[in-house]
Amino acid sequence: MTAAEPGAGAPGGLVGAELLDAWPLLDREEKVEGFRLLSPAEAEDFFLGLDALAQADLLAGLPPAERQIWMRQLAPDDAADLLQTLSEDQRGAYLALLDERARKEVVALLAYAEDDAGGLMSPRFVRVRPDMSVDEAIAYLRRQARERVETIYYVYVLDGAQRLLGVVSFRELFAAQPGLTVRDVMHAEPVRVLADLDQESVSQVIADHDLAAVPVVDREGRMQGIVTVDDIVDVVREEATEDIQKIGGTVALEAPYLHVGLLAMVGKRLPWLSVLFVGQFLTTAAMSYFEGEMARALVLAVFIPLIISSGGNSGAQASTLVIRAMGMGEVRLRDWWRVLQRELGVGLVLGLVLGAIGLARVLLWPAGSAQTQKHELLLAITVATSLVWIVLWGAIVGAMLPFLLRRLGFDPASASAPFVATLSDVTGIVIYFSVATVLLTGTLL
Amino acid sequence: MTAAEPGAGAPGGLVGAELLDAWPLLDREEKVEGFRLLSPAEAEDFFLGLDALAQADLLAGLPPAERQIWMRQLAPDDAADLLQTLSEDQRGAYLALLDERARKEVVALLAYAEDDAGGLMSPRFVRVRPDMSVDEAIAYLRRQARERVETIYYVYVLDGAQRLLGVVSFRELFAAQPGLTVRDVMHAEPVRVLADLDQESVSQVIADHDLAAVPVVDREGRMQGIVTVDDIVDVVREEATEDIQKIGGTVALEAPYLHVGLLAMVGKRLPWLSVLFVGQFLTTAAMSYFEGEMARALVLAVFIPLIISSGGNSGAQASTLVIRAMGMGEVRLRDWWRVLQRELGVGLVLGLVLGAIGLARVLLWPAGSAQTQKHELLLAITVATSLVWIVLWGAIVGAMLPFLLRRLGFDPASASAPFVATLSDVTGIVIYFSVATVLLTGTLL
Repeated sequence: MTAAEPGAGAPGGLVGAELLDAWPLLDREEKVEGFRLLSPAEAEDFFLGLDALAQADLLAGLPPAERQIWMRQLAPDDAADLLQTLSEDQRGAYLALLDERARKEVVALLAYAEDDAGGLMSPRFVRVRPDMSVDEAIAYLRRQARERVETIYYVYVLDGAQRLLGVVSFRELFAAQPGLTVRDVMHAEPVRVLADLDQESVSQVIADHDLAAVPVVDREGRMQGIVTVDDIVDVVREEATEDIQKIGGTVALEAPYLHVGLLAMVGKRLPWLSVLFVGQFLTTAAMSYFEGEMARALVLAVFIPLIISSGGNSGAQASTLVIRAMGMGEVRLRDWWRVLQRELGVGLVLGLVLGAIGLARVLLWPAGSAQTQKHELLLAITVATSLVWIVLWGAIVGAMLPFLLRRLGFDPASASAPFVATLSDVTGIVIYFSVATVLLTGTLL
Repeated sequence: MTAAEPGAGAPGGLVGAELLDAWPLLDREEKVEGFRLLSPAEAEDFFLGLDALAQADLLAGLPPAERQIWMRQLAPDDAADLLQTLSEDQRGAYLALLDERARKEVVALLAYAEDDAGGLMSPRFVRVRPDMSVDEAIAYLRRQARERVETIYYVYVLDGAQRLLGVVSFRELFAAQPGLTVRDVMHAEPVRVLADLDQESVSQVIADHDLAAVPVVDREGRMQGIVTVDDIVDVVREEATEDIQKIGGTVALEAPYLHVGLLAMVGKRLPWLSVLFVGQFLTTAAMSYFEGEMARALVLAVFIPLIISSGGNSGAQASTLVIRAMGMGEVRLRDWWRVLQRELGVGLVLGLVLGAIGLARVLLWPAGSAQTQKHELLLAITVATSLVWIVLWGAIVGAMLPFLLRRLGFDPASASAPFVATLSDVTGIVIYFSVATVLLTGTLL
């Protein structure tokens, strides 16, 4: 996406803002009608501000001549994004609307996966030769600035084979002594990314180096395009959204919540929900296994939701912290041992505190029949001991599961709170009844 | 933060990268030692790339003369961020290290809350007068570009009272006909934000309008500074991290996971864990209330973890989707009714499917004694009916809780997966036994 010229959204952007607000509620005909109410300048700002899906939806409602005008307003990377939303056979028709240069650029971009540096980049960067003088370069850039280029903030220095030699910010060039050459003022060997680097890593590189744009090269070092930081804001937001949705136990949505239809939404949520449900069959098996113990001391059953949920909560905390730390690049695979040590300590402290609260709960507010109340202290110790182990176990499972998933090549964010809770529910039941068997046999059991 | 000049991190950035890698593991003395191994250019890149906390930590280990050199390398907004990490009495000493102009700028910035537009902005933007000719403006900018300015990408047009009249991108200025004035080429009434707007809203404005920078004004329309998109990348990442941590049921951490000490980590996790634990006492109360039913048909107890966890999972899905949609500005308070309608539909479908799986589970894999197996079909219907209601109820609670929290002035992200699970556990038990009482009285009960 091209960073909008500074006037975008104003003046008179209010009508556009209202239209944007109502957009999800309108059908295609109403969208076209509303769009036609905008002044030409407003319409341009409005159209360029829509995401690719909404742009495609609007264009589908316009007559071919207008569709062509709007397709030609798009920067090549945005046009490629729009085409990605269309079916194969529609793509050809839309491609034919572009002029030849743009069509070539777009076809080249379509070759890259949407989520890679190549799919994010714009081929319209400004370039100079190393042997130009500073003043020649500035004059040359002044001509390039009149064309559609993504940004003139960074100026890329290429050799005859289009290999990236260096980079110089426009400001440095502008402030340099006129007698110098570009080679004198450029930074050699700049930070760059390969075209097939995934977008999350690209955003990490840009964030780590505080860049406004990063050059994209192929394996021979030839310059392919640039990814600008404003594209990265969208990527960072999208990636965080995906992580959050996965942590909540949903397959990542591809559109805003209110734009996802009923069946599509069920399709995103049912798979995990069913898998977790079937996983929870193990709790039923565990409960059946201990039915004898429950029959002898029904009071044990009363505490089950309390005890197993504590493990799930402790695990949800640990897994979300570790997933996010991995996503931010703060924790890597090889840090698993340090994380485990940390969680052993934290989980033990948390378990001891919850165990103490649980002990007090049973002693101060006795449950069960008069018979069980005779063994109140033993019951309280059973509950408290189980809590210590289950909270500790939850923290360890929650913290280690993202490592395991990443090691196996899955997304660590799939270690969702519900997934961790399910795992710790099953083990929680086993731990609780095992502790009970040890401590209560001969008294309650 | 200033966007780094393009060479940042290279050449020779490898030593710096290794140091950055090892950074969290080093004590202050080792940090200083490692830092001294870097070449002057590397050291500058390295220092400017650290976050404010790490910068303060490093400076504390340096002798005063060096500390002054490094403090003076910082852009005023970064210097202000660093000072925010220090205690009140240290601040004065560090402020004294700056030259007078920078000190004034930093003091002005410290007046703003760290999380507001004013706390994010840089006062070092480039400005021109409306009556300058395009060529005068370019020559004037060429002089400004030699000073430390944040970006020359956007050029702000101010009147004599420093009120913001318009904005023009450097590229537009550069490409314009030389005979025109700045007023001819500027965009009047540009998008702007007030200095006390919170950073999440600032990032929303920048994302909505695809800006590379947004001007910050006071209530009289006087220009105070600019917030650039590279600062917003950090904000977006921080805000997403906070949301994710809250969704996981943790108070947001203030430092990377591995940098948080054992007790600090317990302090972030124990409060919610204890509150949820005490909340789960309600499940114990509910279980005790239905102890009679369990005594008569112990097989009912066997399905409790399976059934209540389904409500928790369904609720976790709904709450994380709604929290994120709110965070992205896709769903607003007034949309609660549309969300409720959506979740009624989705929750019902999910409940019916899980109910069907549950029905099959009980029929195909009978649990309990021979006595209970006689009433297998009735038991299966009880489990299935409960599942429908509990999954639906979880989805509704999960979706509506973020609205309720926001309406009451709390952060909707506090509707964490564990919180929603706890709420739906309690109601799940009540729903399950109520259904059982209706369907099984006279047979199993």
